[in-house]
Amino acid sequence: MPSSGRSVKVDGRFLRVFPAAGTTTISTQHMYQSGRHFLQIPGPTNVPERVLRAIAQPTIDHRSAPFADLTRDVLGGLKAVFQTQGHVVIFPASGTGGWEAALTNTVSAGDKVLGFEIGEFSRLWHELARQLGIDVEVVAGDWRRGVQPEIVEAKLRDDRAHEIKAVLVVHNETSTGVTSRLPEIRKAIDRAEHPALFLVDAVSSLASIDLRHDEWGIDVTVSASQKGLMLPPGLSFNAISEKALSAAASARLARSYWAWEPMVRANQTGFFPYTPGTNLLYGLQEALRMLHEEGLLNVFARHERLAGATRAAVRGWGLETVCLDPDEASDVVTAVMMPDGHDADGFRRLVFDRFNLSLGAGLGRLKARAFRIGHLGDFNELMLMGTLSGVEMGLLLAGVPSHRRGVSAAMENLCGSPVTTSDPSGTPS
Amino acid sequence: MPSSGRSVKVDGRFLRVFPAAGTTTISTQHMYQSGRHFLQIPGPTNVPERVLRAIAQPTIDHRSAPFADLTRDVLGGLKAVFQTQGHVVIFPASGTGGWEAALTNTVSAGDKVLGFEIGEFSRLWHELARQLGIDVEVVAGDWRRGVQPEIVEAKLRDDRAHEIKAVLVVHNETSTGVTSRLPEIRKAIDRAEHPALFLVDAVSSLASIDLRHDEWGIDVTVSASQKGLMLPPGLSFNAISEKALSAAASARLARSYWAWEPMVRANQTGFFPYTPGTNLLYGLQEALRMLHEEGLLNVFARHERLAGATRAAVRGWGLETVCLDPDEASDVVTAVMMPDGHDADGFRRLVFDRFNLSLGAGLGRLKARAFRIGHLGDFNELMLMGTLSGVEMGLLLAGVPSHRRGVSAAMENLCGSPVTTSDPSGTPS
Amino acid sequence: MPSSGRSVKVDGRFLRVFPAAGTTTISTQHMYQSGRHFLQIPGPTNVPERVLRAIAQPTIDHRSAPFADLTRDVLGGLKAVFQTQGHVVIFPASGTGGWEAALTNTVSAGDKVLGFEIGEFSRLWHELARQLGIDVEVVAGDWRRGVQPEIVEAKLRDDRAHEIKAVLVVHNETSTGVTSRLPEIRKAIDRAEHPALFLVDAVSSLASIDLRHDEWGIDVTVSASQKGLMLPPGLSFNAISEKALSAAASARLARSYWAWEPMVRANQTGFFPYTPGTNLLYGLQEALRMLHEEGLLNVFARHERLAGATRAAVRGWGLETVCLDPDEASDVVTAVMMPDGHDADGFRRLVFDRFNLSLGAGLGRLKARAFRIGHLGDFNELMLMGTLSGVEMGLLLAGVPSHRRGVSAAMENLCGSPVTTSDPSGTPS
Amino acid sequence: MPSSGRSVKVDGRFLRVFPAAGTTTISTQHMYQSGRHFLQIPGPTNVPERVLRAIAQPTIDHRSAPFADLTRDVLGGLKAVFQTQGHVVIFPASGTGGWEAALTNTVSAGDKVLGFEIGEFSRLWHELARQLGIDVEVVAGDWRRGVQPEIVEAKLRDDRAHEIKAVLVVHNETSTGVTSRLPEIRKAIDRAEHPALFLVDAVSSLASIDLRHDEWGIDVTVSASQKGLMLPPGLSFNAISEKALSAAASARLARSYWAWEPMVRANQTGFFPYTPGTNLLYGLQEALRMLHEEGLLNVFARHERLAGATRAAVRGWGLETVCLDPDEASDVVTAVMMPDGHDADGFRRLVFDRFNLSLGAGLGRLKARAFRIGHLGDFNELMLMGTLSGVEMGLLLAGVPSHRRGVSAAMENLCGSPVTTSDPSGTPS
Repeated sequence: MPSSGRSVKVDGRFLRVFPAAGTTTISTQHMYQSGRHFLQIPGPTNVPERVLRAIAQPTIDHRSAPFADLTRDVLGGLKAVFQTQGHVVIFPASGTGGWEAALTNTVSAGDKVLGFEIGEFSRLWHELARQLGIDVEVVAGDWRRGVQPEIVEAKLRDDRAHEIKAVLVVHNETSTGVTSRLPEIRKAIDRAEHPALFLVDAVSSLASIDLRHDEWGIDVTVSASQKGLMLPPGLSFNAISEKALSAAASARLARSYWAWEPMVRANQTGFFPYTPGTNLLYGLQEALRMLHEEGLLNVFARHERLAGATRAAVRGWGLETVCLDPDEASDVVTAVMMPDGHDADGFRRLVFDRFNLSLGAGLGRLKARAFRIGHLGDFNELMLMGTLSGVEMGLLLAGVPSHRRGVSAAMENLCGSPVTTSDPSGTPS
Repeated sequence: MPSSGRSVKVDGRFLRVFPAAGTTTISTQHMYQSGRHFLQIPGPTNVPERVLRAIAQPTIDHRSAPFADLTRDVLGGLKAVFQTQGHVVIFPASGTGGWEAALTNTVSAGDKVLGFEIGEFSRLWHELARQLGIDVEVVAGDWRRGVQPEIVEAKLRDDRAHEIKAVLVVHNETSTGVTSRLPEIRKAIDRAEHPALFLVDAVSSLASIDLRHDEWGIDVTVSASQKGLMLPPGLSFNAISEKALSAAASARLARSYWAWEPMVRANQTGFFPYTPGTNLLYGLQEALRMLHEEGLLNVFARHERLAGATRAAVRGWGLETVCLDPDEASDVVTAVMMPDGHDADGFRRLVFDRFNLSLGAGLGRLKARAFRIGHLGDFNELMLMGTLSGVEMGLLLAGVPSHRRGVSAAMENLCGSPVTTSDPSGTPS
Repeated sequence: MPSSGRSVKVDGRFLRVFPAAGTTTISTQHMYQSGRHFLQIPGPTNVPERVLRAIAQPTIDHRSAPFADLTRDVLGGLKAVFQTQGHVVIFPASGTGGWEAALTNTVSAGDKVLGFEIGEFSRLWHELARQLGIDVEVVAGDWRRGVQPEIVEAKLRDDRAHEIKAVLVVHNETSTGVTSRLPEIRKAIDRAEHPALFLVDAVSSLASIDLRHDEWGIDVTVSASQKGLMLPPGLSFNAISEKALSAAASARLARSYWAWEPMVRANQTGFFPYTPGTNLLYGLQEALRMLHEEGLLNVFARHERLAGATRAAVRGWGLETVCLDPDEASDVVTAVMMPDGHDADGFRRLVFDRFNLSLGAGLGRLKARAFRIGHLGDFNELMLMGTLSGVEMGLLLAGVPSHRRGVSAAMENLCGSPVTTSDPSGTPS
Repeated sequence: MPSSGRSVKVDGRFLRVFPAAGTTTISTQHMYQSGRHFLQIPGPTNVPERVLRAIAQPTIDHRSAPFADLTRDVLGGLKAVFQTQGHVVIFPASGTGGWEAALTNTVSAGDKVLGFEIGEFSRLWHELARQLGIDVEVVAGDWRRGVQPEIVEAKLRDDRAHEIKAVLVVHNETSTGVTSRLPEIRKAIDRAEHPALFLVDAVSSLASIDLRHDEWGIDVTVSASQKGLMLPPGLSFNAISEKALSAAASARLARSYWAWEPMVRANQTGFFPYTPGTNLLYGLQEALRMLHEEGLLNVFARHERLAGATRAAVRGWGLETVCLDPDEASDVVTAVMMPDGHDADGFRRLVFDRFNLSLGAGLGRLKARAFRIGHLGDFNELMLMGTLSGVEMGLLLAGVPSHRRGVSAAMENLCGSPVTTSDPSGTPS
């Protein structure tokens, strides 16, 4: 408080200097940064306070009747979100665990699976599969496009011996902002008349982008809590088709924690084969209620609307998205190419320090070459405008060559087609 | 969830219709509005989550030793914020109670006080004084300027009999966005060599705009919890000079709840003469810590910076602020005149419904003629940009004649002087 | 952590000593006391975590439509608790403010009111009335009995000129654990055919002991948030009869904050004449829901059951309650006389330090001579048994002459009539 | 609320009946049960409100600098609790995951390990090991004693070929309330001069019972969040010796999620190889602070004191603990044998319904034959007395043959040796 010490201005901030110590008492590091943090990485997303308060409920006995009610409520709500009538299982684990579960329950060591490297997360999933002893045939990509249905079809047609046990597709590649067209990929598999399981990573798409587990014939949909479901990380999901469940009976990878069968069985009575993540389940219950209140179609439409405005902003800045095909542009994250010679990570640090805004880093081969704007989860127009303003001012302050027309383009986009401004002075603007 | 019923689109939102009932289950009213609410009225302000979690601590015995520690910690921190070495008392009440306390402790029924109607809140304070039987001499104003020091001086010089017992000044008139120049008013009183008490309403200025109780010779500074102190409403404060405390000995208005003397006495041992607002005191302790971490001078500088950007936006829109004198422009709230023929309240409803943004209403004689943008408390650049974007889009959608240059002007203001945009394409923009 | 320094045992606790400093790092004062605190004073009561989480919801605009919904919901629920069809008003204030409001709205300076000093809180209410300039005729009491209906009748019959404008009765005198018989007092007033208003302090009885504002012809019922309503302190209530409301029109005590009329008027549209205590209203909404879920009659029955067990424990210890008439024994607090020569406050400090249990102090003339066990609000059998065990062990450790049969007597009481213990060894126990 | 409908009393509770429906509106199932729930299962334990509020902090970017600070703080605090200078890793998983990690990082399919079935949890760990393809040699036990050091020694001496790669010991067998003597088991391994790794399950002992990872030469200590660490479930830990880390290099079980090496590497910079359980880490940080404030030795002493009182109660009831050897009696949970012909599960349901108290079920071969009283984590004397009172009243109400002397015996135990009651009436009691 100003009553002791004198103040000096350093980097635009006042620090207090005390005579005795001759030094400031409060380091920049621990200073309170006023106002809300803008967590605009593509997950974890901004957890709504309703969910935060829900997870702060006292932990109860996970073998009691009230807990069984919780389980049933949550599983019912989850099925609606996955758009499935089948089983959905919940692991107390983060999304990586869901990847591992999808594989250990369906394939065996030495089995061949087909993967498509369209970005960092698909690459990591393949790596994980290899660590489990699975033979992953990877179709390389340029990290700027999604999985091409025609390649899926061609690859599967070539596999006349049906050695490929599963096709691995990342629905929304979080590292590039590219959404693969699952219905067309499903049709490609069908056209190839191939029996491979269709395993989908929907970690960053579920509850934000339309994903129809049953209708699209997905065998395992993997997801996690910290994206569209608006929760902290710590829960991972598998939606499981009957075909996948049958495959589990013969899959021979060692599994215990990730085993579906005891989970599905225990869930039927509202319980779990080992201690579940009780407090995150409270949060999940609340998040499902919120999705229900808004309506899932409204949730999808909102993500589409805010993503459209984001892309308008990127065009307004004169920058390029990582995603090359507009039909594959992600409604949850927009990855933006940094002009050559400019460091995306330095830019991100600047907006973090100056504007209390977290943007996603370029990952893997895009490291320092791109930054990512998350626009998913508990999000709305004005949070987006704050975010885009932070990016626009950051680009300016970082000296990144760009037009200052992104924010205004986004506003135009959100308000409908560009409108002639009415003018108080009588002069057309 | 989409698994039952069919969806129809109404007003851009999907509602579910169920066959049996033939009606939607979720009314618009109860729909979850995604993302954070922008509470940009000039108080209550956005309560930071640290404060919300603090007030959720279990209530303890207000006659216990840990409670006395809390009292002492909070009173110490408050004195630093009021910039006083004197007494500060805390009432479990909202700000109106603080007004009443300032008067009942210092004047008697029939006493004359001098007031200045510079807006709705000064008007209400005068009305309250009259209800207490006090004779209020009101200097009328145009609601677009602050208290004029020269009028204060003149009025006091005229009062040779020293009948005026107190001068009432609202530091920051929340209804108009005008900040009166307290140090000059103090000097005016001194020049008039008048013994009147100097009573200041700092409800919306404390902890946002510099306010020096001791240095400026204020006798009673009234404030409340729900503005710069970032708390919910429910606590009210009086900082009290020795002169005011002496006046209390002879002031004869009936008082019990608002009496200073038993409060000051009980506080010395860390307690209160009646049950205090324990959980809001928890929040106050946390809020004072946060102000301390940021540093009070930084807090003032931040409010000044964000207010400057807001005014740049208003100029960008081609609109007029209620405040006419730039030297009196408030750093906590900007009141904006609505062009004639346009309804400010309809505009506010539109931005509330469409953008989840609460703006302040025009009050009293400004009803429907002005709207107010609060930019105080736990606030930062991107929250401001979200707010200003909401206003700009709202003006557009409401068909209010305005330029669409407010948001860009605010960004320029925040980034320093206007800069030539670097251009990726080589063409000057 | 034990990895550095060595530990020494002091007073049964291990403290760490570090070589360099030669001193302990953690003072006893700041040590975390494991487990839940037992807050068994007669208010503030243990605030349930549902209520704590409710008050941690973000503050909203108190002039918005969602706020009006909140007001209406809360006022409706409150009326049911007060058992009235009339007006209930809510002040952002603690209970003392409710006392002041009841008086300033109904009587004038110099008016006579009739009061009964049956303990410290009735004494304080009278003192407050005198500070407001009211002429209080006090019927003295021994602080061990409630208000005697026959005295009420006699006093009113004597007042043929009907100078007494109001009769003030504390329903449950929190300092003594005595509950006055309101229905009989009402009948006494009626028998005297006296027009005095019937003002009742139900601060510590509401929502714990049956209280029927309408049926019992009460004119003003004063209450507060921090007792049976299970909230932190900070809200105060007046339930108001039509007769009281009429009296307000002619009552001439200066009032502004406490004025009913603008409050009642504003409430009709869901709003308040000045800033309300938003976050405590959230808590009130949740507390009313909880009372509704349990059912008000169940709430009363539970308080009666736990109070009965407490009194059985006091008898088991061979101690005496302050309350002399079993028909007036309070269901919310039991005040216990300390045997002569033993200091009740020293005893309370011992149980606080040793068992993390807060008991109520003897107040006023009972200071150090009695202690009080609160058994109201969010409370149940095992919390009571923990409390009574703490008292029994404390009596033992403090060397207070007493039998060690209180806890067992309470258990017998809770389980029904004393039962012969079945014996595993075949020997009668 | 009572204003509508009439009330009927059913099973001692009032239910409201409405004329129209002729049925109660509130089912017993959804009624609010007043007061705190007593969660006295041996984990999850009562999560202190400080921890609950900590986990409700907003989720941040797990790749940011503030997150790295959190990681370092938490890992430092954890090492002190494990009493190790080595590595501790944190999995976003429940305890079962920690078991799996301990094995997959140290042994290979087909390897032999030595296990001791002393209860249900040791049995489950063996089963998990078998699912991973490990050859488990199990020493059977009677479920009433801990691991016998002499058998460990004998078994290892017999294994001259050193085929046994690891010895698995459950420190505190939660199903039986038996604590194995780890230091003696370590000495037994040493005496046998056997190179097997020493793997310890400290899930229910860590932070409650002394456990010295380094000093006792443990190679992997497995633990989890929901017991002595006072958190909700969802985090699992491995403390890892250098020897174990070396073993990981050659262990050939497929692993990805559970792999130590990438975890240890990423932790060095404050990060994680995949998304960590951010909000539970907030809670862990707070829980470690609380353990630090109380002092780890005080924590152990408290558990010992409360366990001693619990065992005194069991003796007072004339019942038998599952644990036969007093030197192995657990300080965190007491399992109690139910007299023949009485159903422990029925008894538990009765105390749950009647007293809002959750007790642990008998597991495996003790199903319905025993119940368990958890007395660990955030716990104190009066919570224990409430718990024991609930058990004593429950035994009475369930008609279980028992003496009614448990509660009084526990109080005597807590107050020191039995004392002669001072007697107010002069008659010896």
